[in-house]
Amino acid sequence: MSSRILVLGGGFAGMFAAKELRKRLGGRAHIELVNEENYFVFQPLLPEVAAGSITALHAVAPLRYLLKGVFVRKAVVDAIDFERKVVTVFQGVQRRPTEIEYDHLILALGQKVDLSRMPGMPEHALTMKTLEDARRLRAHVIERLEHAEITNLPEVKKQALTFTVVGGGFSGIETVGEVKDLIDRSLRLYPNIRPSEVKVVVVEFLDRILGELPEELADYAARKLKQRGIELKLGVGVASATGTELVLSNGESIPTRTIVATIGNAPSELVQSFPIEMAHGKIVVDRELRVPGQDGVWSLGDCAMIPMKDGASERGDFAPPTAQFAVREARQLAKNMAAVLSGGTPTPFEYTSKGALASLGARKGVADVMGVKLSGFLAWLLWRAYYVGFIPGVATKLNVLTNWILGAVTPPNVTQIATREPKGVRYVLYRAGDRIYETGNRADGLYTIVSGAVEISKIDPETGETVTRRVEAGGHFGDRIVLGETRRGATARALEDTRVLVMARDEVMKIADGFEPFREHFVSHIDEAFGVEWTPRPKTTDEQEAQDARKSA
Amino acid sequence: MSSRILVLGGGFAGMFAAKELRKRLGGRAHIELVNEENYFVFQPLLPEVAAGSITALHAVAPLRYLLKGVFVRKAVVDAIDFERKVVTVFQGVQRRPTEIEYDHLILALGQKVDLSRMPGMPEHALTMKTLEDARRLRAHVIERLEHAEITNLPEVKKQALTFTVVGGGFSGIETVGEVKDLIDRSLRLYPNIRPSEVKVVVVEFLDRILGELPEELADYAARKLKQRGIELKLGVGVASATGTELVLSNGESIPTRTIVATIGNAPSELVQSFPIEMAHGKIVVDRELRVPGQDGVWSLGDCAMIPMKDGASERGDFAPPTAQFAVREARQLAKNMAAVLSGGTPTPFEYTSKGALASLGARKGVADVMGVKLSGFLAWLLWRAYYVGFIPGVATKLNVLTNWILGAVTPPNVTQIATREPKGVRYVLYRAGDRIYETGNRADGLYTIVSGAVEISKIDPETGETVTRRVEAGGHFGDRIVLGETRRGATARALEDTRVLVMARDEVMKIADGFEPFREHFVSHIDEAFGVEWTPRPKTTDEQEAQDARKSA
Repeated sequence: MSSRILVLGGGFAGMFAAKELRKRLGGRAHIELVNEENYFVFQPLLPEVAAGSITALHAVAPLRYLLKGVFVRKAVVDAIDFERKVVTVFQGVQRRPTEIEYDHLILALGQKVDLSRMPGMPEHALTMKTLEDARRLRAHVIERLEHAEITNLPEVKKQALTFTVVGGGFSGIETVGEVKDLIDRSLRLYPNIRPSEVKVVVVEFLDRILGELPEELADYAARKLKQRGIELKLGVGVASATGTELVLSNGESIPTRTIVATIGNAPSELVQSFPIEMAHGKIVVDRELRVPGQDGVWSLGDCAMIPMKDGASERGDFAPPTAQFAVREARQLAKNMAAVLSGGTPTPFEYTSKGALASLGARKGVADVMGVKLSGFLAWLLWRAYYVGFIPGVATKLNVLTNWILGAVTPPNVTQIATREPKGVRYVLYRAGDRIYETGNRADGLYTIVSGAVEISKIDPETGETVTRRVEAGGHFGDRIVLGETRRGATARALEDTRVLVMARDEVMKIADGFEPFREHFVSHIDEAFGVEWTPRPKTTDEQEAQDARKSA
Repeated sequence: MSSRILVLGGGFAGMFAAKELRKRLGGRAHIELVNEENYFVFQPLLPEVAAGSITALHAVAPLRYLLKGVFVRKAVVDAIDFERKVVTVFQGVQRRPTEIEYDHLILALGQKVDLSRMPGMPEHALTMKTLEDARRLRAHVIERLEHAEITNLPEVKKQALTFTVVGGGFSGIETVGEVKDLIDRSLRLYPNIRPSEVKVVVVEFLDRILGELPEELADYAARKLKQRGIELKLGVGVASATGTELVLSNGESIPTRTIVATIGNAPSELVQSFPIEMAHGKIVVDRELRVPGQDGVWSLGDCAMIPMKDGASERGDFAPPTAQFAVREARQLAKNMAAVLSGGTPTPFEYTSKGALASLGARKGVADVMGVKLSGFLAWLLWRAYYVGFIPGVATKLNVLTNWILGAVTPPNVTQIATREPKGVRYVLYRAGDRIYETGNRADGLYTIVSGAVEISKIDPETGETVTRRVEAGGHFGDRIVLGETRRGATARALEDTRVLVMARDEVMKIADGFEPFREHFVSHIDEAFGVEWTPRPKTTDEQEAQDARKSA
């Protein structure tokens, strides 16, 4: 029987591993790849998706199209039994677990983002890992321009027009360059926004940006970004965030509604659950890309700690988490797998970086290619050429090229797709003193205090005096929403740093509809607080009639 | 002072009204348009977006780009005070109401979808009104193919590969044609799906499809669709739906996971709240497009009931809800407005349809143009040419054309973007006998019964016997999820037609975290049911440390 090789993950590492394995082994092995999405994301293009230079559909390619001869399974990995050599996945809507047996397992699961060390960041920061992230960022930036264009409030306009990116590595710099481009190109459609009102800031913990590049190029990049009006805050970290400000480790507060986090790489919960050795949040492998102590288990890409020499200990001794390396690792892995399957000996992974490239937006770039340093338009052109060459699939190459060419001749497109406000029950953080809402504002949800305290004030219509009350953890405010309130009848302000749980009206009504204790609590609470008899979600006549008809039929 | 003209709605009617007004009045009036999105949707292209023939970004154009000289406001209309001539909107995240005064108000608010007369349809049917709908349909269809490709269960495969479209008008027929195209083009990437396993069905209440077209063309269309393997069920309505079946009015049940509803047009809640006369769910206007009895209020497009002759009473006496008419109405309205502003007399709206066009997918179409009937490839080409000519904005025209040309030469793209499962608290309907979940399935939420009854059965590990219990309205099941259960320990089956409320684990935990009565109820419920002491959402050490550090700082 032929070997069963199972690849988990469809990023650069996993996709190229499956591709190289198929190339080397042909039909001699059954190769299967499991990924949560049915497409491969061309990660380096995500900032361009955010800017709208290329459309989301063209920054990705279907795995089935790229991996002919490989069995592709769109599923979520639930668990791995390394003893039995079985991976359990959930696929489709059925929620039924499916077991997949393997002889060789390749872990190419990448990394996730974990911002939980910085209060408020998980709730309020945007990330740039997935295609959805890039699209959300684009919609978010355009929404800010739309709002700045029509608001009459200077404070609101300032928050709306301040954009911050946390992290000055490749991802952060390319993102900020493209976001600035998007804004600059769009402004002529927003006559009420002056260019000087826009503030774009990068926050980097180290003393320089682009730590992966030679200092000379990083300096050039920093100069170019500054010339384009992008502010660099170096040597400073993030302390916390809310929906309206970013607080830095030096105490500085930046009023903003846009925080993009390109930091905080961490292993997924799944990877953390493996009974295998980890170092610095990555899977320990040997130089041949095998996981020590686990029979038939290999790992590569961002989730693996790959030593580039014996006795590796320094950061520089390990393979960096870049696409360039992932593709080379994939080749080495395929070669080693072929060797092992035919009774041979695997060889260590060795590769010297051919250099690094970064786009700065506005047709400027920096490049360090085989020792030659380039900057400006030529470096940017090289960046594009390199990536177009790199893009797997002729169709995708063609589409990206066409998009770029069209983009150069068509006017700015500020179409804001995917704008929906966050749905579902969610946490929001406020700093002491923050206004949560004011009398007359739209009532957008029921607020319950998880920690902190809030002051509710309203003007007594009879005496004309302001009446205030303090609500503490466990209490709720904005509760008139369940009575159908559409405007706030009072003003709410955080007295301390406060975390609230917000439930939209629709959710409160549904839970009250289905959930008796919740309904009872609310019926008596509303009765006590407002002296009103409350009935959640009265059914419409149509609904009732249809139900009755159904039952009697 | 120049007149203030306020247009509500940015579809064909509203966008073209603003454009024509600007053209006629120039700077003599302040023209403002309010829309919930910042873009105009080219509605007739939505089925092509669903099929992926063109990307979402290219089926829309930014209103700001199309409407130079018009003040565009992205906002949600909350209320209209017809006495004070003031419209209140909510814009941006601020939730602060903004008042806009007008001299003339143009209501171009279109229609919404209301499926509430058919139980289960609001919960389980997809619609085709917005850009987001089209994208969701595309992702949904590809998800079904992905699932069918890898499942081992014949029943699941059958449900996954059955696609139903309710409504045989333009929207339904163009949608089904494009969906079938998408599937046919994609199948070569899904080697485990035989073409004969795919079932695509149109359900139409009338005895024929395309009621707007001459019978001869509709017959041709019906023949072509049948040839391509699309089944037409005519003269039958929809009784109800669940997540796994569509039940027709004749009692027939179609096992399917895909129901696209192109029926159920209804006025929005906002329109219903107006103190103005309505007929058949539309705003009554006179032949000059004015709303009788309201000073300075006009209406056009799908939300208006526009008489085409004096004493109009039959359906055919009123303007049909098509883009072709909306654009002509917009011109008439601009002309009438100009007349009124300069003290002249407005004139009645008159227009004879130049014909109708429909695409059937697969490069076939039907057309009835000025009495000439066409079908097949030529009609399809005419359809494309007509719409490219119709698309506002040169850039968008160019993009759509390029997309079409590229689409003809590049391989099928089954990239499935926007795949997220429904989030938030949601209702799900089951028919008596339906399996809700089985032992071992992934635990995806806490279920609470709103109406109906469910049987929970599990095998007693000691005796080996099956133990069953009945849960009725108000009760919950699947509640072990709050204890961290990831797999179901029992099987749940609907005993009657049952409506349940599903809350994801994350939501249960958040609500328990913030909401004391909910938490208390659950702590005691879990203690009673399982004898376990439960603590919701223990904070991670990092989170706790960060919070403590914050507080002491």
